Amino acid sequence: MSINSFGHLFRVTTWGESHGPALGATVDGCPPGVPLAAAQLQHWLDLRKPGQNKYTTQRREADEVEILSGVFEGKTTGTPIQLMIRNTDQRSKDYGDIADKFRPGHADITYWQKYGIRDYRGGGRSSARETAARVAAGGIAREAIKALAPGLQIKGYMVQMGPHQIDRDRVDMDQVDQNPFWTPDATAAQDWATYLDEMRKSGSSVGAVIEVVAKGAPAGLGAPVYAKLDTDLAAAMMSINAVKGVEIGDGMAAAMLTGEANADEISMDDDGKPHFNSNHAGGILGGISTGQDIVVRFAVKPTSSILKPRKTITKSGTDAEIVTKGRHDPCVGIRAVPVGEAMMACVILDHLLLHRGQVGGNRGKIG
Amino acid sequence: MSINSFGHLFRVTTWGESHGPALGATVDGCPPGVPLAAAQLQHWLDLRKPGQNKYTTQRREADEVEILSGVFEGKTTGTPIQLMIRNTDQRSKDYGDIADKFRPGHADITYWQKYGIRDYRGGGRSSARETAARVAAGGIAREAIKALAPGLQIKGYMVQMGPHQIDRDRVDMDQVDQNPFWTPDATAAQDWATYLDEMRKSGSSVGAVIEVVAKGAPAGLGAPVYAKLDTDLAAAMMSINAVKGVEIGDGMAAAMLTGEANADEISMDDDGKPHFNSNHAGGILGGISTGQDIVVRFAVKPTSSILKPRKTITKSGTDAEIVTKGRHDPCVGIRAVPVGEAMMACVILDHLLLHRGQVGGNRGKIG
Amino acid sequence: MSINSFGHLFRVTTWGESHGPALGATVDGCPPGVPLAAAQLQHWLDLRKPGQNKYTTQRREADEVEILSGVFEGKTTGTPIQLMIRNTDQRSKDYGDIADKFRPGHADITYWQKYGIRDYRGGGRSSARETAARVAAGGIAREAIKALAPGLQIKGYMVQMGPHQIDRDRVDMDQVDQNPFWTPDATAAQDWATYLDEMRKSGSSVGAVIEVVAKGAPAGLGAPVYAKLDTDLAAAMMSINAVKGVEIGDGMAAAMLTGEANADEISMDDDGKPHFNSNHAGGILGGISTGQDIVVRFAVKPTSSILKPRKTITKSGTDAEIVTKGRHDPCVGIRAVPVGEAMMACVILDHLLLHRGQVGGNRGKIG
Amino acid sequence: MSINSFGHLFRVTTWGESHGPALGATVDGCPPGVPLAAAQLQHWLDLRKPGQNKYTTQRREADEVEILSGVFEGKTTGTPIQLMIRNTDQRSKDYGDIADKFRPGHADITYWQKYGIRDYRGGGRSSARETAARVAAGGIAREAIKALAPGLQIKGYMVQMGPHQIDRDRVDMDQVDQNPFWTPDATAAQDWATYLDEMRKSGSSVGAVIEVVAKGAPAGLGAPVYAKLDTDLAAAMMSINAVKGVEIGDGMAAAMLTGEANADEISMDDDGKPHFNSNHAGGILGGISTGQDIVVRFAVKPTSSILKPRKTITKSGTDAEIVTKGRHDPCVGIRAVPVGEAMMACVILDHLLLHRGQVGGNRGKIG
Repeated sequence: MSINSFGHLFRVTTWGESHGPALGATVDGCPPGVPLAAAQLQHWLDLRKPGQNKYTTQRREADEVEILSGVFEGKTTGTPIQLMIRNTDQRSKDYGDIADKFRPGHADITYWQKYGIRDYRGGGRSSARETAARVAAGGIAREAIKALAPGLQIKGYMVQMGPHQIDRDRVDMDQVDQNPFWTPDATAAQDWATYLDEMRKSGSSVGAVIEVVAKGAPAGLGAPVYAKLDTDLAAAMMSINAVKGVEIGDGMAAAMLTGEANADEISMDDDGKPHFNSNHAGGILGGISTGQDIVVRFAVKPTSSILKPRKTITKSGTDAEIVTKGRHDPCVGIRAVPVGEAMMACVILDHLLLHRGQVGGNRGKIG
Repeated sequence: MSINSFGHLFRVTTWGESHGPALGATVDGCPPGVPLAAAQLQHWLDLRKPGQNKYTTQRREADEVEILSGVFEGKTTGTPIQLMIRNTDQRSKDYGDIADKFRPGHADITYWQKYGIRDYRGGGRSSARETAARVAAGGIAREAIKALAPGLQIKGYMVQMGPHQIDRDRVDMDQVDQNPFWTPDATAAQDWATYLDEMRKSGSSVGAVIEVVAKGAPAGLGAPVYAKLDTDLAAAMMSINAVKGVEIGDGMAAAMLTGEANADEISMDDDGKPHFNSNHAGGILGGISTGQDIVVRFAVKPTSSILKPRKTITKSGTDAEIVTKGRHDPCVGIRAVPVGEAMMACVILDHLLLHRGQVGGNRGKIG
Repeated sequence: MSINSFGHLFRVTTWGESHGPALGATVDGCPPGVPLAAAQLQHWLDLRKPGQNKYTTQRREADEVEILSGVFEGKTTGTPIQLMIRNTDQRSKDYGDIADKFRPGHADITYWQKYGIRDYRGGGRSSARETAARVAAGGIAREAIKALAPGLQIKGYMVQMGPHQIDRDRVDMDQVDQNPFWTPDATAAQDWATYLDEMRKSGSSVGAVIEVVAKGAPAGLGAPVYAKLDTDLAAAMMSINAVKGVEIGDGMAAAMLTGEANADEISMDDDGKPHFNSNHAGGILGGISTGQDIVVRFAVKPTSSILKPRKTITKSGTDAEIVTKGRHDPCVGIRAVPVGEAMMACVILDHLLLHRGQVGGNRGKIG
Repeated sequence: MSINSFGHLFRVTTWGESHGPALGATVDGCPPGVPLAAAQLQHWLDLRKPGQNKYTTQRREADEVEILSGVFEGKTTGTPIQLMIRNTDQRSKDYGDIADKFRPGHADITYWQKYGIRDYRGGGRSSARETAARVAAGGIAREAIKALAPGLQIKGYMVQMGPHQIDRDRVDMDQVDQNPFWTPDATAAQDWATYLDEMRKSGSSVGAVIEVVAKGAPAGLGAPVYAKLDTDLAAAMMSINAVKGVEIGDGMAAAMLTGEANADEISMDDDGKPHFNSNHAGGILGGISTGQDIVVRFAVKPTSSILKPRKTITKSGTDAEIVTKGRHDPCVGIRAVPVGEAMMACVILDHLLLHRGQVGGNRGKIG
């Protein structure tokens, strides 16, 4: 019920603002005995870290994570794990210009209306910096998953930038880590580089679509009716800054299918296990995993902090025009890739624990 | 944390199976003093009720709701409201054919794997009949909203059936209640009637996209980071049977926009209030409502119970072919319209209470 | 977070008023595959049922429980179990006298102040009748425990009535079911019979202390810091009507002990297992079970509905005197015995599931 | 549901171990706009701080609290407040002797059995040091209460040390801050000083009973059936280390009363408000506050870390004898006083918010 928390048994509460002394995550309910060191979490944080190339914000943050509790002699104890990331680059002079104006498309107006607080230094709690805490928590989830579902792999990648989609025929997963956009389509990566560079130079920004897949998840994860695996994934992804849409499997396109096209036919494979001949369902039926790949996609809107002038108003209620200087991402969707992976990891670990708690393990056998 | 519940303060737990004695909803946290009678809830249930025309299942259910607790002398008491709907048409003979086979695209295989239970009579807990309980609970939410946000209106309608979208230029909201598809486009309604009739006759089914809009919601509803209004709406809609995608505002299409196209510019209106010149955000920024229309869309996949033969397997692990007889909806999306409205009502009431609890009312003024 | 629910994974929501059409419990999170029939629950309800002897209220209620969902072919399905008990004896004429006056020591004044609702017919939601739903839910918990902790036994009994305590040297657990007070001290039972009969005839009432013991619970149940086993037991017992104090092990008397007297010494027993030489701790250390008997005690205040005249006020704010006619328990603590057992069962099952979920089973071995 | 959290809307998660780098509290759901600085929280921490006199542990901890998030320009923002207290005195050599033996009466055996982790350095998560985080969180609650319930006062004090109770006729609340035991009975304070000094010298320890009173709380706080004010208070107090019993109002002694003795008679006072002529109920009826003083008592067992030798076992399963050196409190109950106050503050604020959320304010008027 905590409004800044998610998860049923593996429960993550993030805290902190972009320009305060620190931010982090309080991770409760982690199984004990999981080998864990800060370096393992740092790996994932470094992937998300800004300032690594010209396509992400030039804000320089070390994003060094400290483990303050819950680990003893290199293993989790089963008690809360506190993760802290100091904010080192808190230059706020760049934001002075917008102290009184609201950025169209940004949360500063709604935060103001609700709370009567205007943290003009960089979005405060609504800053994308909050997602660093999620990435760190996701790193813990990944380590815990290893014992509970060995072989489970989570991978996110970009499938669309602005209006430009990848060509599914060109997908090569080995390409994902070879380009700054985490895309499996090498040709798209080249095209997008040119496209985004122009966007950046023109002071504009653009949206993106990210796909995250979990391979090797067991059947049986999820529960009706409000702890469905897809319900929790939808909430997890929609809770990420700037996300406006979430799809499972065929997603919105499922509306276009006929019943026979949508039905993933089943047959017994050579190992005597159920085999689905397609995966329109994205690995989830009735809110419960089928054992197929779990496939989630989400759309990230373009950064609202842009150099192009936009009409807006001030706190005192006068019309104005705004230009957002400062260091911003031309495509914030790029850094959303590791965030989406982290959310997937947290949700799956949570459901592994929830399933073990209520059911103990799958009870129905086929064949 | 209850796996069959949703909501923070206004908390709904649905229970019951399609072929058990009854189903219903336990509604906790409703404000006291709300005028409430079963007839008010029946109104919404009747809209969702099957068997009303040839486009919905011919199963005949009275769907009469009884209020068993929480109302005294015509008003809510502030204690749990128990809603019960008896299942009157429990014919299960139609389902005998599928007692041992799994329907492709249906939850019966995942329920079996997880729980080791095969309620072959009609989906059990995964049946769309569960949504009747949501509609009843939503009826309570609507009554409670009247006192907290007078004038707030919630309306759902179909914007796409199969591949056929409405023409936004033809939208006339007065049309929504004039056709069996709840669509605001009268021309589309005619076209879809022909289209769906063919689908039905051919033993197939088709998906749909539903849009639900809340007009007149105050600014300030929602909270970072995991009780965001859009997070809770995404979870609410994704938890509805057969939903595969959820969008807020521009949704997946937000990925295609540039920053300047996406930014809903703001100006002061003649009444001295902020006015947004567009609504790409769907009324939500940073997880908090802006005061604009709150716009949600979700895609419903086609019914998996179809007359067309599909390849499948049996519990004992042999390949088979399945044809689902029985009484099914050619477009289950039709009946999802009142369900989506109900979920919107529940989420908004919940956030009205949550906002009043933590903040008391909006604290920041403009102008 | 639901205000009428308890439990983390095994989650019970009770609903209903004493004079409405029905009351019951929505039980979510029960493991699947537990053999369950209404008759098993009825057994426990019959023990709590009023009107069985002259020491409990003469209100006659069949207290017949119906299972409306969550059970298929005699086994739990893992989905919500709805339990309903119809109110058959809803005579409310006896209460007419108190429609406008508040009973001193009764919740009717606080319910009125908070909710503005005055269900004068018998306490409404605050009636002890609500505990019937808990007893039914506890019956489910008992069945589920059988598979998870075979041999675990839960037994409650009265250790004090008014100022009269049992003599611990006379305790014979076989006596508990042999007297109307559920006491293991046969001599006390005789004395209390005389004592309570006088109380009843004089129109007064009296309090009691109940002890509930769980034998055979495994070590390792509970978790710091707010899901401690004793924290949850304290909440569970204090939530029962009229309970004013809860003790674990030595309870309030622990304050009087020195460190060496309180420390339950440990030695290895002949089976190579840890053996505690005493049980001041009541089977719980640091919020986690030790494997010893789990011992909880709670005090029940005397019924506030008595024939003796008391000073009070009316809704309209005038001084008055009140005499409560109607059918009331001279010692409501008697019927609290099966309720306390039920709460113990629910809490222990919940922690068995929670422990399995997070930890999987005990990880530390001794010897 | 988070196992290390408490509260419904004002939600506190504590984290950290006695000998790790730091401990703290993540406080979510605090109303925005509350004036807050670290110094206000430090005031309460200093009261609890060890090493201030010879009756508390000689471990020297600065216990300096830092606010890492949730406060901007001196006011709470409505987002999570992270409180961190660095552990500065982490000498662990004193504990070496007990690295392999379990302390009778201590949680180290149950933590080991459950988690397979043995943090021999000082209790890890089960250390009383965890309560520093509660005291800091309680300090926030106190500040937030000021706006919601002006004039509300919370005060805790010791009413029993070992077998020695205070004399209620000698109570003078001005004395509470004048002696090291926080007792309102000056004579008892003198007697206890002698008594505890002997205990300390003999290497023993002793228990205590603490009473906490909230004056000026409005009527209407609390809700049936599992968010009762007394249920939440019982859980809050029982969750404190070493607490074995909790009482509301007359507590366990309520069992001894007759109905007429227990019933707090009501009359209208000169201001036209209800006046209770006594307070056996401890300010709570049916789980909801009456407007009287809210009175809670809890018993703290003696410290289990004592110099007196006790029989125990080792991890490897051999019998042994243990003597706990190190720096321990002869009466850990002393430092429980500010902790009990903090828990009362957190519970009351939580219910102020919960009541405002669901009900908006009291709805029933008298007179």
